[in-house]
Amino acid sequence: MDELNNNIMEEVMKRLGAIASPAEECCKEPAAAASPTCNLTEYVGTTMGHTIGLVIANLDHQVHEALKIDPKYRAIGIISDRVGAGPQIFAADEAVKATNSECLLVECPRDTEGGAGHGSLIIFGAEDVSDARRAVEVCLREIPRTMGDVYGNSAGHLEFQYSARASYVLNKVWGAPLGKAFGITVGAPAGIGVVLADAASKAATIDGVTLATPGNGGTSFSNEVNYFFSGDSGAVKQAIIAARDVGLQLLKTLAPDEELKSTTTPYIL
Amino acid sequence: MDELNNNIMEEVMKRLGAIASPAEECCKEPAAAASPTCNLTEYVGTTMGHTIGLVIANLDHQVHEALKIDPKYRAIGIISDRVGAGPQIFAADEAVKATNSECLLVECPRDTEGGAGHGSLIIFGAEDVSDARRAVEVCLREIPRTMGDVYGNSAGHLEFQYSARASYVLNKVWGAPLGKAFGITVGAPAGIGVVLADAASKAATIDGVTLATPGNGGTSFSNEVNYFFSGDSGAVKQAIIAARDVGLQLLKTLAPDEELKSTTTPYIL
Amino acid sequence: MDELNNNIMEEVMKRLGAIASPAEECCKEPAAAASPTCNLTEYVGTTMGHTIGLVIANLDHQVHEALKIDPKYRAIGIISDRVGAGPQIFAADEAVKATNSECLLVECPRDTEGGAGHGSLIIFGAEDVSDARRAVEVCLREIPRTMGDVYGNSAGHLEFQYSARASYVLNKVWGAPLGKAFGITVGAPAGIGVVLADAASKAATIDGVTLATPGNGGTSFSNEVNYFFSGDSGAVKQAIIAARDVGLQLLKTLAPDEELKSTTTPYIL
Repeated sequence: MDELNNNIMEEVMKRLGAIASPAEECCKEPAAAASPTCNLTEYVGTTMGHTIGLVIANLDHQVHEALKIDPKYRAIGIISDRVGAGPQIFAADEAVKATNSECLLVECPRDTEGGAGHGSLIIFGAEDVSDARRAVEVCLREIPRTMGDVYGNSAGHLEFQYSARASYVLNKVWGAPLGKAFGITVGAPAGIGVVLADAASKAATIDGVTLATPGNGGTSFSNEVNYFFSGDSGAVKQAIIAARDVGLQLLKTLAPDEELKSTTTPYIL
Repeated sequence: MDELNNNIMEEVMKRLGAIASPAEECCKEPAAAASPTCNLTEYVGTTMGHTIGLVIANLDHQVHEALKIDPKYRAIGIISDRVGAGPQIFAADEAVKATNSECLLVECPRDTEGGAGHGSLIIFGAEDVSDARRAVEVCLREIPRTMGDVYGNSAGHLEFQYSARASYVLNKVWGAPLGKAFGITVGAPAGIGVVLADAASKAATIDGVTLATPGNGGTSFSNEVNYFFSGDSGAVKQAIIAARDVGLQLLKTLAPDEELKSTTTPYIL
Repeated sequence: MDELNNNIMEEVMKRLGAIASPAEECCKEPAAAASPTCNLTEYVGTTMGHTIGLVIANLDHQVHEALKIDPKYRAIGIISDRVGAGPQIFAADEAVKATNSECLLVECPRDTEGGAGHGSLIIFGAEDVSDARRAVEVCLREIPRTMGDVYGNSAGHLEFQYSARASYVLNKVWGAPLGKAFGITVGAPAGIGVVLADAASKAATIDGVTLATPGNGGTSFSNEVNYFFSGDSGAVKQAIIAARDVGLQLLKTLAPDEELKSTTTPYIL
């Protein structure tokens, strides 16, 4: 009966978007390889978090205008997902570093499929469709890595991200100083995020950039408190590691019977 | 075991609000017949999408004022639901066409019971309670039809609506030009909605009215991109049919093992 | 098979946050006792609704500033949850009455773990950490009581709260007149909340303070209509009892096969 229960719970959680065990889904879809099931030219690939990558070679002018995109970007790449904003946005930062594209729009719907956080919608622009497609491919490939310090249980989630050198996407979305190390701590339910911010700040000399709370306009009314900070590379890492240690202990108290483990493999070491 | 799993998943999805298989719920509640279980005069009926229809013969003056409703409408009709805004709003447009009532308020909460979209709250006003009740009845009766081009799986949903002649509700909510054909495409996760808008625009000569994205104020932070357009009747239909074909292929890639079918019966042919 | 189904459904609902049967969770965690599993000084306790209580003795100055908290409050107490805002806020009002603390921030994310309502984030300030901790402890202890008139099924929920003498938290959050009896009615899906407001207003002489709808800025786009009112103690109670009677009949129609009962034990008698 226990085994049966577990089988069924896995299935339920999987159908609910795999927030409880996205590692498994990750294993099934390790890379952003094009699925054999879709032959549309717009389709690039999918990855964990119900993330889809898309490209439009020559965006229709009416839609172009409605999205308020600079007319010089005829081709757009799209990353869109149900579960996660931080992992996709940090992956997009790498994608823009690595390709001849620009990030035109980042919006974070209130989502995570019944969880406490966001999804995301990211649009890249490029003059050439191959560059837009390349940005999407790099982003899809990076997401399993940036999911590494996401931890969830039925009561909430924690997320930690680190970049040694913030680029244009992190600057555009959260005001990260360009070229400096940049980190974020996310705690849900939101109160845990307040303690994470405090623990990060006390653990190392970092410069707080923004603190986002459910009602301050930055979180689409998600149940998260997010702290964004920059500083020396070692300090940013140290702050994150201290906060992560606290967060795992606190979130565990709300669902003591559940294992709280990395969605894929932790990368902030 | 597989059969057991399927039985249980059906139950789970049903309890979660039937977003995955509302067709079944529809079959159980084919019409908006008054339930034998409720004798309140305010109760009119229910239908799929966890939609309830209500009427208040003589709205209390304090509540009237707080809702900023024109005092001449003593009676109000209410349509309120957890899953869906487009189906209810298009149904409301038919209700106002068919009855002596006016649509006073339409608001779209972030909902769909853990899904990527909205619920809705619609208030009709009438001088006479029988007219308010009639508007609610027509609306409840129309919803199974307007659910016909809603398609969902565990990763997201698609929605398409078409009216040959937009009336006051569609005009009030989305700026539809009165008396013209009007259509919408909805894609969730949001990135799919961008491709739908592009596909619709390229397929026929239509006039884009609005493009709603998660962060632009029009979507209550849902994980949707919605495109609203008018034009010749044939062009609007052609645009929708082209977008629907693309959308079904894209949403399928995020949950390849699940069937993606109409919630009831497609009506845009 | 039925028993198996029920076992599994219980497990599913529990993992989904126990909105369908939080009474059970309440029984498991009757008080806000410190869990043996967490030795962090910041941890105070947990209770139903995935509520966690936390305290920070000496909040980091950068975080302090980012939260725009008066510098004199070095210590903060935190109540944060996934399911419920009213129960936590009414409990916080008692906590502030009973302790030497102040309520500094209340925000209500769009949450309830796929349900139609909110979670909450509440921050208390105190000059001394023992006062902040005490406020959190009182609040955690009160929540099972204030959950008493919360009723839910798979289609929505109802909530009723009553205070014989509103204090600073209720005044700060909803404009409750200080020292007067204060009540709220909450209905989800939102249309039911309109009928509750009407029923309350007609049942007794009360003074409406605010009516919150999904789109009016006060509800984080939840699928609720909430009515807040004050008046004589007897009138406020009478209004609530009348609304509760109507609400239970209406919400039942959307899920006729499910029992609709108090989350813990009704307290408005």
